[in-house]
Amino acid sequence: MTTTHDATWLHENFEHTGSAFGLRVARKLDEVQSPFQKIEIWESTDWGNVMLIDGAMMVTTRDNFFYHEMMGHVPLYTHADPQDVVIIGGGDCGTLHEVLRHPNVKRAVQCDIDEQVTVMARKYFPELCESNDDPRATVMFDDGIAYMANAAPESIDVIIVDSTDPVGPAEGLFNRAFYENCHRALRPDGLLVQQSESPLALMHLILEMRQAMADAGFESFRVLPFPQPCYPTGWWSLLMASKQSRALTQFRAGDAGAKGFETQYYSADVHRGALAMPPLMQRALGETQDRS
Amino acid sequence: MTTTHDATWLHENFEHTGSAFGLRVARKLDEVQSPFQKIEIWESTDWGNVMLIDGAMMVTTRDNFFYHEMMGHVPLYTHADPQDVVIIGGGDCGTLHEVLRHPNVKRAVQCDIDEQVTVMARKYFPELCESNDDPRATVMFDDGIAYMANAAPESIDVIIVDSTDPVGPAEGLFNRAFYENCHRALRPDGLLVQQSESPLALMHLILEMRQAMADAGFESFRVLPFPQPCYPTGWWSLLMASKQSRALTQFRAGDAGAKGFETQYYSADVHRGALAMPPLMQRALGETQDRS
Repeated sequence: MTTTHDATWLHENFEHTGSAFGLRVARKLDEVQSPFQKIEIWESTDWGNVMLIDGAMMVTTRDNFFYHEMMGHVPLYTHADPQDVVIIGGGDCGTLHEVLRHPNVKRAVQCDIDEQVTVMARKYFPELCESNDDPRATVMFDDGIAYMANAAPESIDVIIVDSTDPVGPAEGLFNRAFYENCHRALRPDGLLVQQSESPLALMHLILEMRQAMADAGFESFRVLPFPQPCYPTGWWSLLMASKQSRALTQFRAGDAGAKGFETQYYSADVHRGALAMPPLMQRALGETQDRS
Repeated sequence: MTTTHDATWLHENFEHTGSAFGLRVARKLDEVQSPFQKIEIWESTDWGNVMLIDGAMMVTTRDNFFYHEMMGHVPLYTHADPQDVVIIGGGDCGTLHEVLRHPNVKRAVQCDIDEQVTVMARKYFPELCESNDDPRATVMFDDGIAYMANAAPESIDVIIVDSTDPVGPAEGLFNRAFYENCHRALRPDGLLVQQSESPLALMHLILEMRQAMADAGFESFRVLPFPQPCYPTGWWSLLMASKQSRALTQFRAGDAGAKGFETQYYSADVHRGALAMPPLMQRALGETQDRS
């Protein structure tokens, strides 16, 4: 991926999809080279602040709610009683913030390898970090692969893999070995959720992820699409897998409908709507996506 | 809007949303200045051919199905028996193609002001023009505003306004006078549908359109969002209005579920899902959107 700063427009060219997204920017606010990656913060004219990691847009103030609400609320309303949640990656803390809005949650661990992402988020996206000091939260900076390898068996209800694309530091979060560790660490009714890229342009990646999860022992799968303007093609998805065979179309719709906190995109009806896979996804993924 | 051709990337900068979309292109295939607008055709590396009108991306081979399927099938499965359909604009013929897949349709008129759009579509998007010679179709080139002003009262079941943005030649398709003519030309159970821009960035425009339709006598309204990668923010919408007060959440789901032709995005479940307005849209538009 390359990013060109053309006059006042910052364009990110997505080489693997042949498409680009851009924002009009006022100025660069910050830049840091961490031991893992280059993090830039820009001020845009209409989308608030923007975080880029190695030239890839990760978060904007304006549109991050689609992603964070779907990554947080879809699995947490699908699980019957999510008490222990682990987020691998997610250093901007937006997913953690959504997770901690659930009263069921007793412990939420966020394990991102790069502390500088969270340092930048606290400074330029403070609204995403509002829950970092929640007594239920543990914000740690470590290797997520090692964290899952060392996690106690059957100790977690929901694992959310909120990572960058499967290149660079995040590559090891997309393979069977990692998923086997997730499988072992989940309780029998546990769920694994991972951002799964664009169903328009990157279906082959979703299929590979699902296969690797199935090889690791996961039983049922579901891919839910949602808009995410600043990611390639603007149409994104999450892949949810369960340890036990179960219909991942079932969720606590009553609780979601009476959730008692405001969201911008997520609702029980939107959750139900996202379960309706368009025909192009059904043909590629199969109607039920269940192994059993 | 400006379009910059930076190396092999064609970026369209959307001035009014502060965002941009781009495609990697191989070469320009054609360009014509019609009496109304400049039409360009580019060959992209991954998205097929691309049509730009006055620098704005209108259609790509790869992603036009979202828009055309939603613009065609949502109103035609909402109406009980759509026999007479008029498309204002739609010169690429993609909406006409979807409309004519419905066996109910007896007559479909497409009235676009600019014949050159259809000339280019026949050449570079032949798959969109496959139904142009259907005996039920009338493909005409005339002023859509005048066409609706002269249409016989209560002669049309569904009017689909498939136009460019409300600037330039399409400006007159977004005001009360035009909507009054549509209202008069519709049968009592008739529906008006119009593309209504991005619900993320252009909600004020959706509100203005709905108000103008209400002022023209329309009774019930519904806005359905859907992905459309090459349009500003990648998240688009259609606004549907009915002459009589009715729940536009009701549609012929059984017929849509047994439609007998293949689609990529539209299905009965996707239609139902698109009716689930996210909270940010509900707050801006009101829960029911019904005047009565």
